Amino acid sequence: MDTHLHHDHIESHLQSSDLITDVVIGMSDGLTVPFALAAGLSGAVDSTSLIVIAGLAEIAAGSIAMGLGGYLAGKTEIDHYNSELKREYDEVEKVPEREKAEVKEFFANLGFSEALQHEAVKEMTKDKDKWVDFMMKYELGLDKPDPTRARKSAFNIGISYIIGGIVPLTPYFFVDDTLQALKYSTLITLLCLFIFGYFKSKVTGVNPWWGALRVTLIGAAAAACAFGVARLIESA
Amino acid sequence: MDTHLHHDHIESHLQSSDLITDVVIGMSDGLTVPFALAAGLSGAVDSTSLIVIAGLAEIAAGSIAMGLGGYLAGKTEIDHYNSELKREYDEVEKVPEREKAEVKEFFANLGFSEALQHEAVKEMTKDKDKWVDFMMKYELGLDKPDPTRARKSAFNIGISYIIGGIVPLTPYFFVDDTLQALKYSTLITLLCLFIFGYFKSKVTGVNPWWGALRVTLIGAAAAACAFGVARLIESA
Repeated sequence: MDTHLHHDHIESHLQSSDLITDVVIGMSDGLTVPFALAAGLSGAVDSTSLIVIAGLAEIAAGSIAMGLGGYLAGKTEIDHYNSELKREYDEVEKVPEREKAEVKEFFANLGFSEALQHEAVKEMTKDKDKWVDFMMKYELGLDKPDPTRARKSAFNIGISYIIGGIVPLTPYFFVDDTLQALKYSTLITLLCLFIFGYFKSKVTGVNPWWGALRVTLIGAAAAACAFGVARLIESA
Repeated sequence: MDTHLHHDHIESHLQSSDLITDVVIGMSDGLTVPFALAAGLSGAVDSTSLIVIAGLAEIAAGSIAMGLGGYLAGKTEIDHYNSELKREYDEVEKVPEREKAEVKEFFANLGFSEALQHEAVKEMTKDKDKWVDFMMKYELGLDKPDPTRARKSAFNIGISYIIGGIVPLTPYFFVDDTLQALKYSTLITLLCLFIFGYFKSKVTGVNPWWGALRVTLIGAAAAACAFGVARLIESA
């Protein structure tokens, strides 16, 4: 009962951390890159509507690229798992003694005595499916990937990127002067990055204040760098 | 000797896949997002120099955000590992019977007989360090992260993004007409995405032609979407 609950706990822990990973990936880039792009353009052009166009084009491009990037990463993981699974079945069939030696080595590394190693290998290799499952999980460290994960991941990352990206652009919708809009954009984006960094760090078990500061400084650095680059080229 | 070689093989496999993962992450976004941004702006503005400014600002912002994103992901992994390690040591100290039951359950899941489970738990829990190490690796599925990985990852992803991002911008340096530059940009970027997708798929064991097509279509979709969004806003 207790171990069952414990298992459920781990499962739900892993699932929520998948979603959180996606949101963190999407939103931290979504808040940072369109913000930095808008900041860069604010130093080089006079028209806020141009910055809005560039910003929304970037959000469209970034959310598709990142979402599909997440999708492909998930798909690749599944393909990789299946090709390794096929290879393990082949090896168990063709070179069973070598595969048995690998199982034995696993238990030797756990600190089992010689006698116990033999016993464990005997029980472990009785059932071919269990044997292959064991090799996949504990020799190669591969868990069976969730087949729906790739699609969910694409969606979560894409949406998070769009939500994050709209934040820094908002002032440019309402303010005509680019440098004035940049001031508001910087204010709200750094505030959002700080709050985002705080909760992200809470979830991952890092000191939240330090984590919040770290995320905020990255956003500021990216924006400052983009601003500098755009100014340099514009004045060249 | 054989198992040692086998172990080295796995290690080098993992290391090269870390680097490849970084390059894939950085370059697929680097080729796609600045390309799509440039495509979007080509449909809405007349000046190639403006597109160059926006593109370089995006590359500066994107490479910093993605590189630092990779850095933070690596750092978070290390912090997470250390906090879980501390908790496992605490639990082994405070609730050893529950932890022993979890070890027993692990061996039960492997298909061990009741007698062998007892034997295995006894040997496994003799040494506290080995015990905790076992819990970390096989109950929580956490490997000790490489402490230098975060920095390497940041660098690899950032550089890959810059290299990828320069490709679609190149025509805008040399051609004055934005739509003409977009044609060349589309040609060389889709070609690069195809080649990139081909080799990436070869490495990950996916059918390379299908993988190449998939990556190319994503880039084209992102660019078309950005172009459409920018046109829509510009004409509104």
